[in-house]
Amino acid sequence: MFKKSKYQRNILNQLSPVQLLLLFYGIAVVFSTILLSLPIAHKPDVSIPFIDIMFTAVSAISVTGLSTITIVDSFSTTGIIFLAIIMQLGAVGIMAIGTLIWLVLGKRIGFKERSMIMTDQNQTHFDGMVRLIKGIIYVLLIIELIGFLILGTYFLQYFPTAKEAYLQGFFGTISAISNGGFDITGQSLILFKDDYFVQFINILLIIFGAIGFPVLIELKEYLFRKRTEKNLFHFSLFTKVTTFTFFVLIVIGALGIYLLDMNAFFKDLTWHESLFYAFFQSVTTRSGGLATMDVSLLTETNQLFMSGLMFIGASPSSAGGGIRTTTFALAIIFVFTYIRGGNSVRIFNREVYNEDLIKAVSITLFAITLVIFSTLILTAIEPFSLEEIIFEVTSAFGTVGLSLGITSELSNISKVLIMLLMFIGRIGIVTFLLIFKRKKKKAKYHFPKERIIIG
Amino acid sequence: MFKKSKYQRNILNQLSPVQLLLLFYGIAVVFSTILLSLPIAHKPDVSIPFIDIMFTAVSAISVTGLSTITIVDSFSTTGIIFLAIIMQLGAVGIMAIGTLIWLVLGKRIGFKERSMIMTDQNQTHFDGMVRLIKGIIYVLLIIELIGFLILGTYFLQYFPTAKEAYLQGFFGTISAISNGGFDITGQSLILFKDDYFVQFINILLIIFGAIGFPVLIELKEYLFRKRTEKNLFHFSLFTKVTTFTFFVLIVIGALGIYLLDMNAFFKDLTWHESLFYAFFQSVTTRSGGLATMDVSLLTETNQLFMSGLMFIGASPSSAGGGIRTTTFALAIIFVFTYIRGGNSVRIFNREVYNEDLIKAVSITLFAITLVIFSTLILTAIEPFSLEEIIFEVTSAFGTVGLSLGITSELSNISKVLIMLLMFIGRIGIVTFLLIFKRKKKKAKYHFPKERIIIG
Ligand SMILES: [K+]
Ligand SMILES: [K+]
Repeated sequence: MFKKSKYQRNILNQLSPVQLLLLFYGIAVVFSTILLSLPIAHKPDVSIPFIDIMFTAVSAISVTGLSTITIVDSFSTTGIIFLAIIMQLGAVGIMAIGTLIWLVLGKRIGFKERSMIMTDQNQTHFDGMVRLIKGIIYVLLIIELIGFLILGTYFLQYFPTAKEAYLQGFFGTISAISNGGFDITGQSLILFKDDYFVQFINILLIIFGAIGFPVLIELKEYLFRKRTEKNLFHFSLFTKVTTFTFFVLIVIGALGIYLLDMNAFFKDLTWHESLFYAFFQSVTTRSGGLATMDVSLLTETNQLFMSGLMFIGASPSSAGGGIRTTTFALAIIFVFTYIRGGNSVRIFNREVYNEDLIKAVSITLFAITLVIFSTLILTAIEPFSLEEIIFEVTSAFGTVGLSLGITSELSNISKVLIMLLMFIGRIGIVTFLLIFKRKKKKAKYHFPKERIIIG
Repeated sequence: MFKKSKYQRNILNQLSPVQLLLLFYGIAVVFSTILLSLPIAHKPDVSIPFIDIMFTAVSAISVTGLSTITIVDSFSTTGIIFLAIIMQLGAVGIMAIGTLIWLVLGKRIGFKERSMIMTDQNQTHFDGMVRLIKGIIYVLLIIELIGFLILGTYFLQYFPTAKEAYLQGFFGTISAISNGGFDITGQSLILFKDDYFVQFINILLIIFGAIGFPVLIELKEYLFRKRTEKNLFHFSLFTKVTTFTFFVLIVIGALGIYLLDMNAFFKDLTWHESLFYAFFQSVTTRSGGLATMDVSLLTETNQLFMSGLMFIGASPSSAGGGIRTTTFALAIIFVFTYIRGGNSVRIFNREVYNEDLIKAVSITLFAITLVIFSTLILTAIEPFSLEEIIFEVTSAFGTVGLSLGITSELSNISKVLIMLLMFIGRIGIVTFLLIFKRKKKKAKYHFPKERIIIG
């Protein structure tokens, strides 16, 4: 590339990581909107309203996949490649900056804790971390290349020309691994509802994107160790909690989706059809957004259940959104520990910092408030049913991208609200609130304490 | 009455306050169900299914007011008087035992804190507290007598016979002050939608019942002081927080209800009609349950807004339900303090105990989970819309008793679920969870602490 001038480097150094993220997001949205507005990006004779181009750009940058237009009918091959690049940028850019924010915040909490984090991340210093992030991006690109080759070649049986098959393979791979959730088939993965191979590859790619950078980094560390040193390696508490929660959610999700539609959607299906439908739709609520069925066919209760799953979302520092798996796990554990009279929280033989628990419940409550208020606003201005609105709102906040079909019919105000939710869901409540954070003033004196009756 | 035998006294002493409450609740439900099953309690030729009698009993004991039958069409005058007695018992009994639980729990937290509570309650010892509770009950009875005389006499213009007018006055007073929410007009207070005097008296009675025992006790203390000592009196932090929240919720509630229906229900009404409709319906969500209008006429958004208000409910140790005003206030303050990077919470120049904050957010999250799961279950087995179900569930949990009209059409399973919600809402999440609390085992050792990335 080019060498940064001293001036540029100073400017960037002066920005806080959060400002850096906002700058990145802002530039990315403007850049993507312009890119997708170019005539070369559109199908001939198709004109797309500005709000919809911007909506598509924000949805792609925040790798949500909600769309007010049908991609394949609106964009040319060039436009589709642009969209893939934007998703890739949105997934990796925010993920990398997010990881940096966390590292920088980690620095603030004092030398002792920082060295503890670094140790737990099996890292000794910051530079090593940056090197590792680069490493992961290389791995990502290699996996994408493999995915592209496998899916593209496999798709030759599905599509008339090799060009179309490989374009589908290229776009599909990036859409899955970035958790972008867009499709150029015109109907997500419904085309492959009986093709368990395609579904399996997609599940792997989605999980890779949603499981979180730190987990991937530790996994890479572990795998590249010499065999003799492998049993000396300790996975961090974070990795254990997030991975455990991630897979528990997938299993409970699949089970719930099946049970809630046992006598409806799944009634006349074979066991393997039911298994794959339930399993894929559960995985996709972690934030993938691709689907092998029309989710509006499920029962109302099931749609609400899926809304809950989408609200939780993916793991921290991943390509996903929502309150995050760790936040959910800590909030649950917190409530059940304190409610039963405990006063410290232990998971996997480690005691959890009070500060982290407080953060987790604050985020959860804040996110619930956000979702409730957004839902209220949408019920006031849109004619859709409450289920449809809750589904749309949680899908945007979880950057999932599933919809019961109302996205394209939303009014402009609602589109802006959904864009905002995708943005907040993508950067995460913690980062979002850092925008408004005032400099910490150390309280000089304490007021007398006084108890309050609760409940 | 009669002197308790030594044996009886021992049994009662051995019960924990929570067991005492459960015993009271259980006996009260059985006793009320039997009472309301007596033929003398019914109108001639009316036969009420057992589940509906039990539902009415539970609804009256938990002073909710949801009803699967029309009271005035089903019960005789005797039955109506029974019902009034049951509401009175439910309001005062649980309130008094609740206050005792809190005092006993207060004892557990060590001498220093206890003496602080006692001081803040302007009380020096337990016996004095019991004496004060008795005092409040006397005041309650006197206010009820006054309410009965005023309303009964005033009602002479509304009802054909003096007997009916005074029966309406008697039942109406008890229903309002106990926050029972039942009516024997057949249509709540819609009859008095233009009679601001009746509405005003009802508002006063409802607030008296919902503002909480401890507040009333402090108020009584303050009022009975010599004039010269009045400025030496300090209201406790609890009283300040709960009273402030209580009235802020009423104002915000009235404002919200008005604004959300400005162009619909309130469109063609005069300013004073709008004011009273909005104000009364806001007050009633604190947990009164009486209404001067059919709330199903409001917009869907307004119904959801009211559901939120009902979920919050009344003040602790009152005749109301929900998560309670203090819990709501602390949860809000907690989230906004920690989210902005603060590390201690101050209200009214007092620092709040961490333990109380943790309790407040735990309760809130637990209650949200409870409401969500109940809603999911009802959507799965009932044909009603999501708004109707959310409204019914929060109304039961807040022991409010408003309904969009689905109560009588619920299936038996749903009726049982609603009964359970009324029970939990009435005794409060804290007390409810004490039922399952294990004896605290002091952890002998601590596990090493480890940080977790949140969000
Ligand atoms: K997505
Ligand atoms: K009530």
